Amino acid sequence: MSAYSYEILETKERLLEDNDQHAKAIQSMLHQKGVFFVNLMSSPGSGKTTTLLQTIQALSSQYRIGVIEADMDSDVDAAAIANTGCPVIQLHTGGCCHMTADMTRRGLERLPLEQLDLVFLENIGNLVCPAEFDTGAHCNVLLLSTPEGDDKPLKYPLMFQVSHLMLVNKMDVASVFDFDIEKATQRARSLNPDLEVLPITAATGEGMEAWFAWLKDHMEAWRKMR
Amino acid sequence: MSAYSYEILETKERLLEDNDQHAKAIQSMLHQKGVFFVNLMSSPGSGKTTTLLQTIQALSSQYRIGVIEADMDSDVDAAAIANTGCPVIQLHTGGCCHMTADMTRRGLERLPLEQLDLVFLENIGNLVCPAEFDTGAHCNVLLLSTPEGDDKPLKYPLMFQVSHLMLVNKMDVASVFDFDIEKATQRARSLNPDLEVLPITAATGEGMEAWFAWLKDHMEAWRKMR
Repeated sequence: MSAYSYEILETKERLLEDNDQHAKAIQSMLHQKGVFFVNLMSSPGSGKTTTLLQTIQALSSQYRIGVIEADMDSDVDAAAIANTGCPVIQLHTGGCCHMTADMTRRGLERLPLEQLDLVFLENIGNLVCPAEFDTGAHCNVLLLSTPEGDDKPLKYPLMFQVSHLMLVNKMDVASVFDFDIEKATQRARSLNPDLEVLPITAATGEGMEAWFAWLKDHMEAWRKMR
Repeated sequence: MSAYSYEILETKERLLEDNDQHAKAIQSMLHQKGVFFVNLMSSPGSGKTTTLLQTIQALSSQYRIGVIEADMDSDVDAAAIANTGCPVIQLHTGGCCHMTADMTRRGLERLPLEQLDLVFLENIGNLVCPAEFDTGAHCNVLLLSTPEGDDKPLKYPLMFQVSHLMLVNKMDVASVFDFDIEKATQRARSLNPDLEVLPITAATGEGMEAWFAWLKDHMEAWRKMR
């Protein structure tokens, strides 16, 4: 196969603002209130809301859960979460493609934190920008769905670097999309050797027990250290 | 079902810089060189590269085609395009989540425009930020793949507003994901009544003839007006 040679231009630009101070303030607040905080990130349509709904259903008898929903517009996700009975706040970011720590703090302050054990942030569906902004969360959980392809770590490296756990969702259709979880895991771990990986199908519940166990372990470990 | 009432906070922030001047300069350059320029946008993994490869295969006997591949990192897409024999340039945006007109211009200037009729920009996989930046392209083509869900216009309205055509990809698995193309179309057109919609399955070639025809019509119309 004859290949036209191509050139690579580096056009790196930083859009990142320093929001570390806000993230630290959030961590202090959560420490004081005893609330464990999880930042859920993914591409649009990878299954964050479905995963969240299943998680609330499974764990709400043991933990008091609150949710911050972030979207550019609409409140379809907040409405779905509200139906579970959990306190939820919908943040509208307008044109903004990620949650900053300052925006996150404003969401947290509207939740009844004294009455909560666990808060989830459902970040904007975007594999790029949310990875750059520390939201003050105790862990970053990335959802990668099989229709997106197993090459995503190559293209969006930072997201895989900043995550603690990768939930590989829609495993029931992996073969339809030639998705190779070994390849995806290998590519992600070459960026982040500590990344934990769990295959799930949130819509059917397959593999979800391992995710609930991971979450409980990390939450209890944090509580002991606190 | 008892629903917890939730609050909506507006935290609109503008990250947009004015890049209109660069976009206008691109349009002048393309007008002068007689090159039609198409900006392809979508979420990660919606099938932009597969669609592009099929399009090049179908049209390269009639038109001289060049490609700008934009990614945060990696050159897997440029390598795939290069194998078709088309001139291709890989832009690395580093941390940047979208293509500005200035970055686009730098890519275009490295292509042999005098020897081309048609250039595609494969934008960063992101439904948010690329919508905000005019790249100087003659048309914006949005790919929405069925696994992402038919509610995406509600959450990422600007992308649907700025696009001329929505290719609904992976139609072969629409039923697996309860994707309703009527709902997606209705939601998108409530934001942009002029949006054209074509269902495709790029991996199998289904529906692709209509896309090729759309592209040729728009390109020929532009040539006549030029």
